[in-house]
Amino acid sequence: MSQRLAFSPSEVLLLGPGPSPLSPAVRAAMSAPLLGHLDVEFLELMDRVQADLRVLFATKNRFTLPISGTGSAGMEAMLTNLVEPGDRIVIGIHGVFGGRMAELARRLDAEVVEVHAEFGEAVAPEAMAEAIAAGDTRLVAIVHAETSTGVMQPLPEIVAAAKRAGALMLLDCVTSLGGAEVDLDALGIDAAFSGTQKCLSVTPGLAPLSLSEAALRKAADREHPIRSWYLDANLLAAYWNGDRVYHHTAPVAMIYALAAGLDEALGEGHRPRFDRHRRAAQALYRGLEALGLSCLVDPELRTPMLSSVLVPDGIDEVAVRRDLRQRYQIEIGGGLGSLQGRVWRIGLMGHGARLTSVLRVIGALGGTLSELGYGCDTSAALVAAAGRE
Amino acid sequence: MSQRLAFSPSEVLLLGPGPSPLSPAVRAAMSAPLLGHLDVEFLELMDRVQADLRVLFATKNRFTLPISGTGSAGMEAMLTNLVEPGDRIVIGIHGVFGGRMAELARRLDAEVVEVHAEFGEAVAPEAMAEAIAAGDTRLVAIVHAETSTGVMQPLPEIVAAAKRAGALMLLDCVTSLGGAEVDLDALGIDAAFSGTQKCLSVTPGLAPLSLSEAALRKAADREHPIRSWYLDANLLAAYWNGDRVYHHTAPVAMIYALAAGLDEALGEGHRPRFDRHRRAAQALYRGLEALGLSCLVDPELRTPMLSSVLVPDGIDEVAVRRDLRQRYQIEIGGGLGSLQGRVWRIGLMGHGARLTSVLRVIGALGGTLSELGYGCDTSAALVAAAGRE
Repeated sequence: MSQRLAFSPSEVLLLGPGPSPLSPAVRAAMSAPLLGHLDVEFLELMDRVQADLRVLFATKNRFTLPISGTGSAGMEAMLTNLVEPGDRIVIGIHGVFGGRMAELARRLDAEVVEVHAEFGEAVAPEAMAEAIAAGDTRLVAIVHAETSTGVMQPLPEIVAAAKRAGALMLLDCVTSLGGAEVDLDALGIDAAFSGTQKCLSVTPGLAPLSLSEAALRKAADREHPIRSWYLDANLLAAYWNGDRVYHHTAPVAMIYALAAGLDEALGEGHRPRFDRHRRAAQALYRGLEALGLSCLVDPELRTPMLSSVLVPDGIDEVAVRRDLRQRYQIEIGGGLGSLQGRVWRIGLMGHGARLTSVLRVIGALGGTLSELGYGCDTSAALVAAAGRE
Repeated sequence: MSQRLAFSPSEVLLLGPGPSPLSPAVRAAMSAPLLGHLDVEFLELMDRVQADLRVLFATKNRFTLPISGTGSAGMEAMLTNLVEPGDRIVIGIHGVFGGRMAELARRLDAEVVEVHAEFGEAVAPEAMAEAIAAGDTRLVAIVHAETSTGVMQPLPEIVAAAKRAGALMLLDCVTSLGGAEVDLDALGIDAAFSGTQKCLSVTPGLAPLSLSEAALRKAADREHPIRSWYLDANLLAAYWNGDRVYHHTAPVAMIYALAAGLDEALGEGHRPRFDRHRRAAQALYRGLEALGLSCLVDPELRTPMLSSVLVPDGIDEVAVRRDLRQRYQIEIGGGLGSLQGRVWRIGLMGHGARLTSVLRVIGALGGTLSELGYGCDTSAALVAAAGRE
């Protein structure tokens, strides 16, 4: 038996669009002793995770559980269950992830109506309402916190328009859940999906979902079969809530990590946690401003957990990210889609949403930009970020 | 901030149908520092994992990678990419998992031809050849090591029939990969999927896949769109092999664990590892026989990594499993489908395929069965299992 050198990753501060930094408790949970996926202790943990997710989503929905795939699998689970061929669905698109929903819906033979906003802006509620009322709309879908831009989409008018039309309302909460208010029942959301690697600070690999009774009825009473067996909500419900019918081998260690992340989130409490995300974002804005940098998004539309920062003229954005990663051991994100090359994306999510993270990234940006000939006062920026906390 | 009691699982020896026991190295890998999914160190690890999986599958297929879901997602990825509406596909069914493939293929509007064997037997190659030749067959699918029965399916005649028909050959290697010979290129397999939680002894959550060039052409040149975005092989190839186009957030910690499991598997070497699985199975057979217990499957068709043991008349099989779990801290599996209540399933997979596991489970079975009034000599069974090693 020959020995191979084990992979030993660097310790990088994850301040990109996700994954976010893990807490020590979540890291430890990943390597707890493995149980079988039908073990009685594991079944109890599944119940606990479901109850905790209901608190996090602020919902009574009995179908509230993590599926065994990343956030994109969560999106796919929602559309695959809720869209039938020929269904008219209206999708608000204010970034890459709304566009992805539209692409998948077309693959499922839906009649897709797209309502667009410029990247960096929110979708206009009136435009959504008009599109929803213009036909027999079955489903309305939009992204809450657009990870590609950092825009928080206002929702009440859009949900009201969906309700008037008798359509189901689907919300992408990948980046908002755990970092800002996501009150499914109060908002009137029928279907929501998220990911674990953003504001929950759990390793990527699971997608928390929630479906209302109306959404479950749609999944149960379809004319056409659900095109997936793995993501079929009826089968998932039987494993998680029903007779514990074996469906697939749950990713046990990932569920441990999610349980630990939920312990931390619910232990901290919604309000303190969301306030912490807002305070971290305010510190970042102060530091960026003092460096002479601007955010893409207007202040009232910004997501606290993700900020798109405009790249100054003449600066090679890739070189900055490379330097941050290699010398400062910090990851930030680049732009996606039409924003590629135009913005950096700085995430302050979950365990990473704290002043220490802000000071490290402001210091690193100031140092790197100075070296590239961009005139800025890093000392002043650090004082600005820290000072008024 | 209130504190919640962290979940603390029991240490259970996993000798069921999977998940299997983790080695210390794999457990440690899960909690290594998290990297971003586009980080340069992580991209290098992805290359290493792909190269290692090619060795394990004994293939040159460039598309050989783990998808971000469990083994069932691997099955779904294969059929979703390779089956178009109206395609005639022939599926050999000798257990629960073949039946699952047929169900999914029907959801994808395929014309499904099922060729059945009794649970506990292999599918007859002549029956498969006849079904394949009876129409314009596009795909032939069968399970290699049936996890629900413990039968290893003979393959060469079936593959030959598929080739004669110009059909693609799909193999479910969930339970065989890493514990027995799976030589994709030598066998002529076009598409294969597996899971990490069986003979690789990695936590459940990933499905290694491999696609030949012919299979990739089918996925690329379809008349109907692939009904999935998450599992679209064309998009996955662009992230894993192409321009590293962002597709979804890879389950980073799971990939670490897989890399560690592959280090161990390739460090040990194919032949010694497969021999170890066979020796462990032989020890189990000796111990079971000495306890007066019989296996469901004829010796020449048995999988070494999973054994279906017939429950003696008058014994409550659930009570036995409960006692093994609660007092001996050992998990074994019950029967699935038509074998429910009739068999136990004992897995000796990956890190669990060793004499120590056999001695623990034989001792525990002997003790529990004696207590239930079943006459057996546990001492003799332990000596039989251990003695002739």
